[in-house]
Amino acid sequence: MADIKILETFPNPAPARDYVIEHTHHEFTSVCPITGHPDFADITVRYVADKICVELKSLKLYFHAYRNEGIFFEAVTNRICDDLGKVLNPRSLMVISEWKARGGFTSRITAEWKRKRKS
Amino acid sequence: MADIKILETFPNPAPARDYVIEHTHHEFTSVCPITGHPDFADITVRYVADKICVELKSLKLYFHAYRNEGIFFEAVTNRICDDLGKVLNPRSLMVISEWKARGGFTSRITAEWKRKRKS
Amino acid sequence: MADIKILETFPNPAPARDYVIEHTHHEFTSVCPITGHPDFADITVRYVADKICVELKSLKLYFHAYRNEGIFFEAVTNRICDDLGKVLNPRSLMVISEWKARGGFTSRITAEWKRKRKS
Amino acid sequence: MADIKILETFPNPAPARDYVIEHTHHEFTSVCPITGHPDFADITVRYVADKICVELKSLKLYFHAYRNEGIFFEAVTNRICDDLGKVLNPRSLMVISEWKARGGFTSRITAEWKRKRKS
Amino acid sequence: MADIKILETFPNPAPARDYVIEHTHHEFTSVCPITGHPDFADITVRYVADKICVELKSLKLYFHAYRNEGIFFEAVTNRICDDLGKVLNPRSLMVISEWKARGGFTSRITAEWKRKRKS
Amino acid sequence: MADIKILETFPNPAPARDYVIEHTHHEFTSVCPITGHPDFADITVRYVADKICVELKSLKLYFHAYRNEGIFFEAVTNRICDDLGKVLNPRSLMVISEWKARGGFTSRITAEWKRKRKS
Amino acid sequence: MADIKILETFPNPAPARDYVIEHTHHEFTSVCPITGHPDFADITVRYVADKICVELKSLKLYFHAYRNEGIFFEAVTNRICDDLGKVLNPRSLMVISEWKARGGFTSRITAEWKRKRKS
Amino acid sequence: MADIKILETFPNPAPARDYVIEHTHHEFTSVCPITGHPDFADITVRYVADKICVELKSLKLYFHAYRNEGIFFEAVTNRICDDLGKVLNPRSLMVISEWKARGGFTSRITAEWKRKRKS
Amino acid sequence: MADIKILETFPNPAPARDYVIEHTHHEFTSVCPITGHPDFADITVRYVADKICVELKSLKLYFHAYRNEGIFFEAVTNRICDDLGKVLNPRSLMVISEWKARGGFTSRITAEWKRKRKS
Amino acid sequence: MADIKILETFPNPAPARDYVIEHTHHEFTSVCPITGHPDFADITVRYVADKICVELKSLKLYFHAYRNEGIFFEAVTNRICDDLGKVLNPRSLMVISEWKARGGFTSRITAEWKRKRKS
Repeated sequence: MADIKILETFPNPAPARDYVIEHTHHEFTSVCPITGHPDFADITVRYVADKICVELKSLKLYFHAYRNEGIFFEAVTNRICDDLGKVLNPRSLMVISEWKARGGFTSRITAEWKRKRKS
Repeated sequence: MADIKILETFPNPAPARDYVIEHTHHEFTSVCPITGHPDFADITVRYVADKICVELKSLKLYFHAYRNEGIFFEAVTNRICDDLGKVLNPRSLMVISEWKARGGFTSRITAEWKRKRKS
Repeated sequence: MADIKILETFPNPAPARDYVIEHTHHEFTSVCPITGHPDFADITVRYVADKICVELKSLKLYFHAYRNEGIFFEAVTNRICDDLGKVLNPRSLMVISEWKARGGFTSRITAEWKRKRKS
Repeated sequence: MADIKILETFPNPAPARDYVIEHTHHEFTSVCPITGHPDFADITVRYVADKICVELKSLKLYFHAYRNEGIFFEAVTNRICDDLGKVLNPRSLMVISEWKARGGFTSRITAEWKRKRKS
Repeated sequence: MADIKILETFPNPAPARDYVIEHTHHEFTSVCPITGHPDFADITVRYVADKICVELKSLKLYFHAYRNEGIFFEAVTNRICDDLGKVLNPRSLMVISEWKARGGFTSRITAEWKRKRKS
Repeated sequence: MADIKILETFPNPAPARDYVIEHTHHEFTSVCPITGHPDFADITVRYVADKICVELKSLKLYFHAYRNEGIFFEAVTNRICDDLGKVLNPRSLMVISEWKARGGFTSRITAEWKRKRKS
Repeated sequence: MADIKILETFPNPAPARDYVIEHTHHEFTSVCPITGHPDFADITVRYVADKICVELKSLKLYFHAYRNEGIFFEAVTNRICDDLGKVLNPRSLMVISEWKARGGFTSRITAEWKRKRKS
Repeated sequence: MADIKILETFPNPAPARDYVIEHTHHEFTSVCPITGHPDFADITVRYVADKICVELKSLKLYFHAYRNEGIFFEAVTNRICDDLGKVLNPRSLMVISEWKARGGFTSRITAEWKRKRKS
Repeated sequence: MADIKILETFPNPAPARDYVIEHTHHEFTSVCPITGHPDFADITVRYVADKICVELKSLKLYFHAYRNEGIFFEAVTNRICDDLGKVLNPRSLMVISEWKARGGFTSRITAEWKRKRKS
Repeated sequence: MADIKILETFPNPAPARDYVIEHTHHEFTSVCPITGHPDFADITVRYVADKICVELKSLKLYFHAYRNEGIFFEAVTNRICDDLGKVLNPRSLMVISEWKARGGFTSRITAEWKRKRKS
């Protein structure tokens, strides 16, 4: 089970600057919840860190944890977006999933995380 | 006959977020209404769901139903746009058809669906 | 001689919507008016139709009619733009010509047609 | 020596329209002023003509004249921009030089010419 | 050790114009500070020079000096950005690092340098 | 129904020479006999003509006739090979079908026709 | 567990001809037996059928069965080759596995099956 | 009319060596003898010169002379082969024509010229 | 220092079959022995194992050990070939190094290892 | 003037093995002896060294020396082949020149050097 506890972080080395970090995982695979057939995607995480950055190896293990989970394209993209938002509380965050050919289709889902304003 | 009754839907798993869903069908084929020759296209459906999403397998069957229909590039693109707008009532929707070489030409038609404002 | 009488039209199937039609001809050829050597280009016609659309086969024949005409890159692009504007009276129109290698150069000319406002 | 007297012009065939002319020379070569080694670039000239256009063959000869000149990337791009601005007095003008690999680097210089306003 | 003293400069040949200089180094390599494994990147430096430009060969030597340094993706990108900002004091500056495949991931870090306003 | 009577021929213009003719059809489509789903392929016909050549437009119509036929990859490739062998009686003939992605697979079938020796 | 009982066959539709069938699976994934990390490959099966052909959907399911198996590149390629040889007893057979990037490496293993001669 | 008198030659600069000369013309165009529509091809001439080589500019003019000639793919390839064989009497010669998309087809014709043995 | 003691092996899982193993390392780097500048290459090792195979992670570490060694293209290719031949004593072995751009050149060195015949 | 005295050599580091060395220069330029226009080519030198190898930097300088020489494609390829054969006396040698677009043509010349047998 993909669990946000897998995700590790390290302090942002340049917190005074708004700069963009983008990691693309080219080996994401999960399972169709209806047919049980495997799905394959490239997942891109693009964010501006605030206090912490996500550690790359832990992000890989977090993605590997979806390997045998049955979940729809739309749902998994939003869940990754929610999980990373919760762990990193970044200045901004976008998650893009690009799904390989299935039944003559390719698909792309793009979700953006909105930081809650301090009141 | 391509009929919107073929299209099935499922509840949007993240209705609180405006996120973009994009499906590209690489195997669309219909027939020229004048010459009877086959036409081939990639059809992209890009939308922000409101309450429901289109189910991918039913979208494939809906597209397959055009296989032997005689219809112009401009007309079929607008019809797909109208059909998906009616079924999904999405927050926004765009349909793009990219037609393979015919007589030395490639063509692309881009139609956008406008949601009716509640009065 | 390329003559706008070659161009045929059909009624816009979706006049209520502003949608974009783009045809790219990959086999345009004319002749250099100075050297007599052949020139080759891809010509893209991108427009938003108003009442009528251009029929694709007649557009091909209109382009074929330039085969042995001596005319400069800049002039032919503007002439096609004027001709299609006159015949279609579209909501908007752009013509792009991309010329193959000649003397180590490639060239691209981009012309936009402006609709006359009704007074 | 590259001299603007090499450049020839012809009257703009469509002066009533603001349209974009873009010529890319794929065979530009000059010499490094320090090491004497050859440099290679693609040079793009993009402009909106006013009264005159640059004749393509003369532009080629103008570029050939840099073949054995020792000049830095930054300097040659600005000089071409100045020369073409002076000869054409165009509505707008941009020159882009893209330099092939040298010591593991590729480089791109982009300069824009500003027309002097009539007072 | 990568040291800004390695960087050499020359006077901007066209200081009256805001033009863009972009150098991409395709052979950057450093070392992962945790595993000791080599990392590889393309590093792009894009800036508008003020009084001085960076000399290309010295920039290469500055990048070579990272060859055996253990440093994270995020840290090295920000450090290069700081170093070049300090040496060049340019009108604007952006540094982009694009990292080759590591554990199924590619990464891209984009940092922008802000000139201090004169008070 | 695909019928060899659709195929038309013309006399080989150079019967004294063994030369190779190769036609690739990029728009072949038939139907899976089990699921009824459409299949798409590029079909290449490579042959050395003896007395006659196949006329290209009739070959297109012959391929179009498979549009709604349910037939396996292996069977259709061999049937095209048999049909063209019978009609052309060429000096040699090879048929290659390359099938687009289906369930994560691409496939290629290569069949060669052997001329019967005169006894 | 990948089991040859998953594999289904159908009669060769053209047993009188030696023709080549090639299926490439682009979504093969197994697990490294040492690190537990996923591996990804394209697997090509190229064979000349004798009495029977392998059914494509069953071949997909057979490949899916490796999804969570820990097995080396060299071992899995030879095992697929042995399994298909046993089930199909083809006139000839070759299996090629092409492994995606792992630690800066790509790999390719090519195994050929030899039919036992009847004595 | 394409006439072999257009072709000019120059003495082979290295007659003692059998070396291969290959010229590919990317801008060949002729006309379909049935429909009158233009055809486009890349034509490659590959030969081992004996006493003379073909001059490149004259070869271009010879190819240009086909611009408005109605002739089939198979016939024009053989005719070019015969013409060049007659003019050059080379040690060996091959002509390959590769035709752009027409009705969903691409085609390639390959003809080899055989030198007559001295008796 | 690159030392063959770094290389680890495991038993060939299919010693009864002559099959081909090919590993390509895309991140090889060494240093020019004259200028001290870094060189970059793809190194391919292609072999038919006899009793043992090379373990992939140890091969990576063996290649990493060249990172700061000054050695010519020709010498390093032959040394890798000798080292792997000595460690694996394979049925056959080929090493190919493909060097990235240096001074406008790319280079490729191909060395084959010959097994000593038992006498 | 290109002179073989520019070429420097070093001892073959593995004379006991027949291995292939291939250098491709991507920045060759000379001048057309008739029109004076520049020509551009990729030149590949592929050889099996005997006692000596050609030093890469001197080979670059030797190629640079053709920059302003007027010489035909066929002649320069054979001259390079002769020069390198004379200097290296290799076990085998091939020179391939691939010329960029000129008048719609690309060209390739391939010359092989034959070692004189000792009598």
